[in-house]
Amino acid sequence: MTGLVDQPEKGNGRIVISVDAMGGDRGPAAVVAGLEKFAAKQPGVYFIVHGDETVLNKLAGRRKALAGRYEIRHAPKVVTMDAKPSHVMRNGAGTSMWSAVESVRNNEATVAVSCGNTGALMALSMIRLRKLEGVNRPAIACLWPSRNPSGFNVMLDVGADIKADAEDLLQYALMGTSYARNGMDLARPRVGLLNVGTEEHKGRAELKLAHDLIADAAEAGNFDYVGFVEGSDLPSNRVDVIVTDGFTGNVALKTGEGTAKLVGDFLKEAFAATPLSRIAALLALTSLRRLQKRIDPRRVNGGVFLGLNGTVVKSHGSADATGVAAAITLASQLARSGFQERLAARVASAAGPRQDAARDADSNSGAE
Amino acid sequence: MTGLVDQPEKGNGRIVISVDAMGGDRGPAAVVAGLEKFAAKQPGVYFIVHGDETVLNKLAGRRKALAGRYEIRHAPKVVTMDAKPSHVMRNGAGTSMWSAVESVRNNEATVAVSCGNTGALMALSMIRLRKLEGVNRPAIACLWPSRNPSGFNVMLDVGADIKADAEDLLQYALMGTSYARNGMDLARPRVGLLNVGTEEHKGRAELKLAHDLIADAAEAGNFDYVGFVEGSDLPSNRVDVIVTDGFTGNVALKTGEGTAKLVGDFLKEAFAATPLSRIAALLALTSLRRLQKRIDPRRVNGGVFLGLNGTVVKSHGSADATGVAAAITLASQLARSGFQERLAARVASAAGPRQDAARDADSNSGAE
Repeated sequence: MTGLVDQPEKGNGRIVISVDAMGGDRGPAAVVAGLEKFAAKQPGVYFIVHGDETVLNKLAGRRKALAGRYEIRHAPKVVTMDAKPSHVMRNGAGTSMWSAVESVRNNEATVAVSCGNTGALMALSMIRLRKLEGVNRPAIACLWPSRNPSGFNVMLDVGADIKADAEDLLQYALMGTSYARNGMDLARPRVGLLNVGTEEHKGRAELKLAHDLIADAAEAGNFDYVGFVEGSDLPSNRVDVIVTDGFTGNVALKTGEGTAKLVGDFLKEAFAATPLSRIAALLALTSLRRLQKRIDPRRVNGGVFLGLNGTVVKSHGSADATGVAAAITLASQLARSGFQERLAARVASAAGPRQDAARDADSNSGAE
Repeated sequence: MTGLVDQPEKGNGRIVISVDAMGGDRGPAAVVAGLEKFAAKQPGVYFIVHGDETVLNKLAGRRKALAGRYEIRHAPKVVTMDAKPSHVMRNGAGTSMWSAVESVRNNEATVAVSCGNTGALMALSMIRLRKLEGVNRPAIACLWPSRNPSGFNVMLDVGADIKADAEDLLQYALMGTSYARNGMDLARPRVGLLNVGTEEHKGRAELKLAHDLIADAAEAGNFDYVGFVEGSDLPSNRVDVIVTDGFTGNVALKTGEGTAKLVGDFLKEAFAATPLSRIAALLALTSLRRLQKRIDPRRVNGGVFLGLNGTVVKSHGSADATGVAAAITLASQLARSGFQERLAARVASAAGPRQDAARDADSNSGAE
């Protein structure tokens, strides 16, 4: 099955997503099921699916909604979840992950999606796609359930790198703003810098410096800087883009997920405790489902790698069909909005003279 | 009302707690109400209450359970919530917070409790109580709801300092272990080091070094070292003591609290959405209360300052009577167990030659 690769992914509205089908905890069956779930709802999106040809042909051939919308690229090897990124960088050729990134590198696809090993995916994306001109440290951005009108914040970096200096944090603010505009349709995002308090005298030296840099860049960058935010502000309606280093962001992300799961488990146990409470649970089912839907992590599945020459979406390793479909939805939205070109323009303008940046912001105001 | 101060706080089972009554968001009324709530349940604990004498006399005089169990120390000034720690260090004399710490310094009370400004309380405690011999950076330890048999983990540091090197992290492991033994009755705590992954090659350089130091200290310290843990492990039954620097710990603590509150709010909204769901909520009331009780942050109110010559419990600024009573309960448990002396012995033994440490651990095994 060929023919997809000849089509430009823009202009005729034809979008091509490159998918690593082998990396996740649940294997290719969950990935292909997720592709069909997405495909049944959204026409005009095509897939290059990377992995074991025999397995994938068998899995995808049965799926009606996928007919005529995918091409399989055989990749004999798989990156395991515990593989060291440095090892994968040297020996990754022939894996489905490498192959999936390669399709973006060759401009066959606009966005790559993988459920595989995060560190390996970042390392491969770095060496194959290379950093965007003007970016020192790429970042992973995730969506965070919040009281915002859109229901989500963006937080970055959540684990691409374990450190970030003031300049990196400024770039995260610019990249996160661009992502919020194109991925979440927010015309003028509110940006906050994560710290241990909101007072200006608090925190590490690089945070005080970043505080000033981001404040200075707000007008030209067409965003509102709300200053320092705390962990308790993450789910709030105070901020749309939360900027932090990858160590802190990763701990915060996993802590939030773990806490939400703990509360959910306690809720289940509370309703299972007595015969009467089990009856109450039946009556409360609609309400509980309403809650479940709002905090379901599968709905916001997809960390986005920002700052490379190409967009890569990292899905949860444990994603099921619903989770994979959510990651593909995010990838197609970013592809459709022309996010990559806009992001590159934004970073380049910030790296250039201040005057240029101001002019760029004026001519693009609200649309970036 | 005098006479408390002449009594030794141990031996005759008489425990004296020093209380800053003025610092919290809800003022002295909430603090005095919390004291009564605690006093009504637990005999044998006495209070030195610091703050505005007229106000406190009026508030405490009405409380039956407090009769004969407190002494008021007049302090005309109050440390405000937004005061800079450095300012309070220079100008704090005469405040209720300073006075409350002073009672521990003078050995009139075993533990001090305050709902006031955390940074100021830490700064005052540092200069008045001084660091324990062998401790470089004191830490704040908090309890974290978890799937543990006891229902809680200990995490430290959650905000005493914004950084920690490998030696500091080792000391946090020792101090946290001592706290888990005496505050939570865990004979052999499991210690984990917070990182962005559980693999040994992950994380910052100081974490890899601390990993080795803590592993080496486990046998002599009579604890189990489980290695690196992630944010998602915080509410788990994998670990009892979570060691991290104060920046990361503070962000994790506030993120966890914020997430639990978000889920709780969403739950309320889900049950308020329709007339039918409101009826379901009535029927589910017992279950919802059971959940509420398990995740109620007031039940675990009290960060403990570790590594000073004296124990200080920091209650939430917004604590109500229930929250204050929880902080006092924690303070009295620590006082009763002779925690401060045991902690000092533990830290001193670790600072001394390895042989001494091993001997100390043998002679104290399980009891520390």
